[in-house]
Amino acid sequence: MTGSNGAGYERFLELWSEVNDLSRASAVLSWDQETQMPEKGSEARGRVQSTLAGVRHAKLTATELSDALASAAEGVEEGSVEAAQVREARRELDRISKIPESLARDLALAATRAHESWRRARAASDFSLFQPDLEHMVGLKREEARLLAGPDGRPFDALLDQFEPGVTEAELEPLFTELRGRLSSIVRAVTESGKAVDESPARGDFPMEAQRAFGHRVAREMGFDFEAGRLDLAPHPFCSGFAPTDVRITWRYLADDFRSALFGIMHEAGHGLYEQGLPLEWDGTPIGPATSLGIHESQSRLWENLVGRSQAFWSWCLPLFHEYFPGSRDVTVDRLWPALNTVKPSLIRVEADQGTYDLHIAVRFEVERALIGGEVEVRDLPELWDVTYEELLGIRSPDVADGVLQDIHWSFGGFGYFPTYTLGNLINAQLFVAAKDALGDLDAMFARGEFRPLLDWLRDNIHQHASRYPANELVERVTGRALSPDDFLAERARVAEEVYGVTV
Amino acid sequence: MTGSNGAGYERFLELWSEVNDLSRASAVLSWDQETQMPEKGSEARGRVQSTLAGVRHAKLTATELSDALASAAEGVEEGSVEAAQVREARRELDRISKIPESLARDLALAATRAHESWRRARAASDFSLFQPDLEHMVGLKREEARLLAGPDGRPFDALLDQFEPGVTEAELEPLFTELRGRLSSIVRAVTESGKAVDESPARGDFPMEAQRAFGHRVAREMGFDFEAGRLDLAPHPFCSGFAPTDVRITWRYLADDFRSALFGIMHEAGHGLYEQGLPLEWDGTPIGPATSLGIHESQSRLWENLVGRSQAFWSWCLPLFHEYFPGSRDVTVDRLWPALNTVKPSLIRVEADQGTYDLHIAVRFEVERALIGGEVEVRDLPELWDVTYEELLGIRSPDVADGVLQDIHWSFGGFGYFPTYTLGNLINAQLFVAAKDALGDLDAMFARGEFRPLLDWLRDNIHQHASRYPANELVERVTGRALSPDDFLAERARVAEEVYGVTV
Repeated sequence: MTGSNGAGYERFLELWSEVNDLSRASAVLSWDQETQMPEKGSEARGRVQSTLAGVRHAKLTATELSDALASAAEGVEEGSVEAAQVREARRELDRISKIPESLARDLALAATRAHESWRRARAASDFSLFQPDLEHMVGLKREEARLLAGPDGRPFDALLDQFEPGVTEAELEPLFTELRGRLSSIVRAVTESGKAVDESPARGDFPMEAQRAFGHRVAREMGFDFEAGRLDLAPHPFCSGFAPTDVRITWRYLADDFRSALFGIMHEAGHGLYEQGLPLEWDGTPIGPATSLGIHESQSRLWENLVGRSQAFWSWCLPLFHEYFPGSRDVTVDRLWPALNTVKPSLIRVEADQGTYDLHIAVRFEVERALIGGEVEVRDLPELWDVTYEELLGIRSPDVADGVLQDIHWSFGGFGYFPTYTLGNLINAQLFVAAKDALGDLDAMFARGEFRPLLDWLRDNIHQHASRYPANELVERVTGRALSPDDFLAERARVAEEVYGVTV
Repeated sequence: MTGSNGAGYERFLELWSEVNDLSRASAVLSWDQETQMPEKGSEARGRVQSTLAGVRHAKLTATELSDALASAAEGVEEGSVEAAQVREARRELDRISKIPESLARDLALAATRAHESWRRARAASDFSLFQPDLEHMVGLKREEARLLAGPDGRPFDALLDQFEPGVTEAELEPLFTELRGRLSSIVRAVTESGKAVDESPARGDFPMEAQRAFGHRVAREMGFDFEAGRLDLAPHPFCSGFAPTDVRITWRYLADDFRSALFGIMHEAGHGLYEQGLPLEWDGTPIGPATSLGIHESQSRLWENLVGRSQAFWSWCLPLFHEYFPGSRDVTVDRLWPALNTVKPSLIRVEADQGTYDLHIAVRFEVERALIGGEVEVRDLPELWDVTYEELLGIRSPDVADGVLQDIHWSFGGFGYFPTYTLGNLINAQLFVAAKDALGDLDAMFARGEFRPLLDWLRDNIHQHASRYPANELVERVTGRALSPDDFLAERARVAEEVYGVTV
């Protein structure tokens, strides 16, 4: 603590912690809705979420909090923890002051409703079941974006900022242009090579319970603490952290291909390790949460792709794999590894290989910009989706369930969220280079099943800082460089060369 | 609606609905804590529950609500639905106005902590792990009881009133005295008869998953709607209704005796049918919930005992039982039925037979009265418990896990709750006589697996009224008589005669 404003600062943190408790209650209710709630419960749940959002909004906009913040801000030292607390609180209060309580409630209610109709629409592969609720949601999000951006800002930037503070459409556009160009070259080179990877080692008969147990085991070996977390089936894999002591990940599976479940679990466990590693000391304070979704995604993708898809990891993991799946006893690392690193255009983002994944994100970036900008309407989405997939990936979904309805995000109003996945890819590649510089031969450790040094490095360099530093500043502090796509694209080129023998 | 105060009445219901939403959020969080939450999450969860309790308390005590209630109350017609809404709201506001917000928060926090330490203490069979948290809880409850009772009331009555409005210790005392006398006579006569029931037909090897599926099936046949509810494993069976559209029951099981799981599920499904049958029209209003725990318990016990332990039910259910448990194919109704209706003193309330169950409640009634009255302290409980069991049931637990730590109730501060179980027994017996008068040969229906007529009768006579009428008034309306123990004791005597051939 600094200066004489100790009591004001404490009061500010106390009030903030109550707001945070209301967010947590909402988060538990959302997790419950996704994994546990019976179908007919959604109407009543929507009202509860709406009330909680309203109460939270009222507390965030109360004079008591802004007064306490003003008092807390007096005399804080630049660069101190207290200054970071004030900065993050101001950011949130500034945002919230622009949103009327009625809109906050409407958004919460709309999310509950749209979530249910999205689920039904996806099951029936019928966009019309989702369309009215999505139209309502988009209307609310356009209004929210307009209010947040103000007369001089750009609405889509305001939505991006919620997930990745400071990032703008203008910065992302050249980035996606470069990625599209380079990734397309790799895809083209692979296609032209005529070489196909034998994916049969990843296929077979994988009983659900064995997949769960295997994924659970791998997550534990990564360091995920199951006394402070859990793993549940859900229609869409996600991670919810209610506190560093209560972090929940979900999974889904394909009965004939183990990759979907395993890499989904490693991905969500990567998120979960970040959440479990956030400092308890700052829990419930403005800087307590993860600093950005891009950083969050760098953690999940690092474990999923740079650890889980490496040869070194599999030279340790193969005996475990054989133990849980005796039917795959003839699978070797040499045969399996290429099947984990294919480059092949496909329809479903969350099942996409790492060579094409960011092209899926590029589709969504284009579609969302146009939608929030008002250049297209909800009714145009199925067609726009298919056309853009055709253009970027050269394929088209036979139905809307695997097309425009595949992602949960729009149902909760998460426009501007997708680009953080690609930022996560760029960040994780750059972090991994720094980790190797610091720790030496990571591959040798992975081959021995030693993941603790890497986790400790991430804890020290990323997790323990929570939101103390903005994402871009954190990346520079840890890697000594501003974020660039170079490491990521180098890794993609290296893998394509090793698997397909192509040089791009 | 009546009179010219329509807007005031609507505003009152709107404000009430928000308070109710906060209660629901808390209820979901409690269910989650009991069935899903990882162990380390309890500290953070306690803070969230405490904040929610504080916000709810503030909303309930806000002038805005009392003003709206006053305005709503103007000119309501006696006997109308609106009058019942005002009555129930006043009851709650009167109660809450006596409890300072700080005490409400402390109670919520204490419940979360005590719940965790109770769980640990029970697992370790070590009362000292629970004692400090329970002492804290008892201190808070004594304070709450004192404030609620006021200078002229009796503290224990104030606690009873929370669960069974209007019931007093003075009314319960002669009731328990009569029950103790009559039930003890039956137990004595059974013991003296020297006849023992062969319980082996209820024992065997019952795989957990088959028990779950069997219980699930029976609950469905009773009419429990699984699209508006669910069934989960938990350390203690309970039912949580978040809305008529989201009702959750839990179960536990013994691997070598199917009775624990099946009758637990039928019991909780009986609660669940009441919750699912509450009118949606009144959902979230003051008269929306069940009218009392005694009435609630009458529903669970009616299905568990008067349906589930009847010969008629088993003449329908036996083929199902054989289907789920092929190892029990040689079991017949004649052999099984006595094993479902034993009279034998035992240690665990929730596993107790129906001939001795209310003696377990009598123990708790004695212990709680003494504890809240300040005649004994928490440290005395293990010994007092054992002595009272010895006195009333003639047995003593070898450890505290199956003794004073067996019930969850005190961990959440539920003092005054237990007597509602016995009231439920008295009410269900009296209701069942009325249902037979109205519907005719219920046994013949049960033998055909027809439970709908009984459920419809309960929906019409009990469920649809929610809290419109106080419990004692409702019983009189439906049965034409004030509540008495006669029907219950007659049923107990009849069963003892049929099973043991004793006449009391």
